[in-house]
Amino acid sequence: MMIRQSTLTLDARPRGFHLITAEIRRALPDLSDVRAGLLHVFIQHTSASLTINENASPDVRSDMEDHFNEMVPENQPYYDHTIEGSDDMPAHIKASLLDTSLTIPIRHGEMALGTWQGIYLNEHRDHGGRRSLVLTIKATTVDETAT
Amino acid sequence: MMIRQSTLTLDARPRGFHLITAEIRRALPDLSDVRAGLLHVFIQHTSASLTINENASPDVRSDMEDHFNEMVPENQPYYDHTIEGSDDMPAHIKASLLDTSLTIPIRHGEMALGTWQGIYLNEHRDHGGRRSLVLTIKATTVDETAT
Amino acid sequence: MMIRQSTLTLDARPRGFHLITAEIRRALPDLSDVRAGLLHVFIQHTSASLTINENASPDVRSDMEDHFNEMVPENQPYYDHTIEGSDDMPAHIKASLLDTSLTIPIRHGEMALGTWQGIYLNEHRDHGGRRSLVLTIKATTVDETAT
Repeated sequence: MMIRQSTLTLDARPRGFHLITAEIRRALPDLSDVRAGLLHVFIQHTSASLTINENASPDVRSDMEDHFNEMVPENQPYYDHTIEGSDDMPAHIKASLLDTSLTIPIRHGEMALGTWQGIYLNEHRDHGGRRSLVLTIKATTVDETAT
Repeated sequence: MMIRQSTLTLDARPRGFHLITAEIRRALPDLSDVRAGLLHVFIQHTSASLTINENASPDVRSDMEDHFNEMVPENQPYYDHTIEGSDDMPAHIKASLLDTSLTIPIRHGEMALGTWQGIYLNEHRDHGGRRSLVLTIKATTVDETAT
Repeated sequence: MMIRQSTLTLDARPRGFHLITAEIRRALPDLSDVRAGLLHVFIQHTSASLTINENASPDVRSDMEDHFNEMVPENQPYYDHTIEGSDDMPAHIKASLLDTSLTIPIRHGEMALGTWQGIYLNEHRDHGGRRSLVLTIKATTVDETAT
């Protein structure tokens, strides 16, 4: 059993939902050694988030952006936290509705994602800047696996 | 310390929220060996999801279905991803609002769920078919536990 | 590698979103021994929940309460599960929209939270009472860390 922990800084992206599976994979060059385990991906921010969703159609990602803007509108009369801009409080709410961290099984050296699953970075601010992730793998490389 | 990993295929279920705690438990016959650890349940799909909620009243599960249909309606004018049917894009959004994976503590050979907690499979498609889960246990069977 | 597991009972709090980072930290006195790992926090209830969000402005927490009340109103005509009061079914829905558990990286003896991140207890009932958490750490204290 071992723990591997590293950090990954993502370049600034425009507001919206972005597929980052390949970028996460490239940040884990020794994943192929892992026989069985879990990958934990954590975003150290409260106005951007993570989720797992459809990896093929860009329409899914733009429809997600449209729907979250509808469900969590800017400029609601009951928002008091407005000093950082109209996109700020909705960004916090969206971050809690979506995920601050993901845990993904690892099998035979690869993430055990379904055929259509990809990892999204959800940028909820108009100008969010770079985003920091902490990646943690807990795994076994040998025959400690019981099943 | 050990890792046990297995897969579980759930039979097709109708659209809605379904209690699957007993089915998960039956898929883990050697859970009783575990002194302390965590169970990770991962669904390899983007239009069905998992959550933990009330395990007693079927009304909770049907009210969940009604409320998610209200919060994430079909046929919104801003949906572009419509080719797979009117239930498809809402299914993707619901999957991200709910959970792709659950992590549950294990204590003394059982899941440490609260009295009223159960594991739900949330089927968001009208005809979703069978659903694949990956189950991973990281645990200790002996006195490695520090607390 | 080791697993440490303990329980923490939180005092009853009024309905709303409450910052509990310091209380969680105090419940983990030996966290400073941990070189690298993960902390899992699990709430054993279906009408209160956890999330990670902004740790500075109390306005964020009251705006969260206001927005979740708007998105998940009481007394919807389609609720059948009404016997435990008008705040009960919305509490279950909010618990599934937010989180039953959090997983947080540990680095160099501390939770690797971002500068603005804090842990929230979200009390969704008017009179929720005390709430039980299960805390699980999986970690290494020495040079087993590969990265």
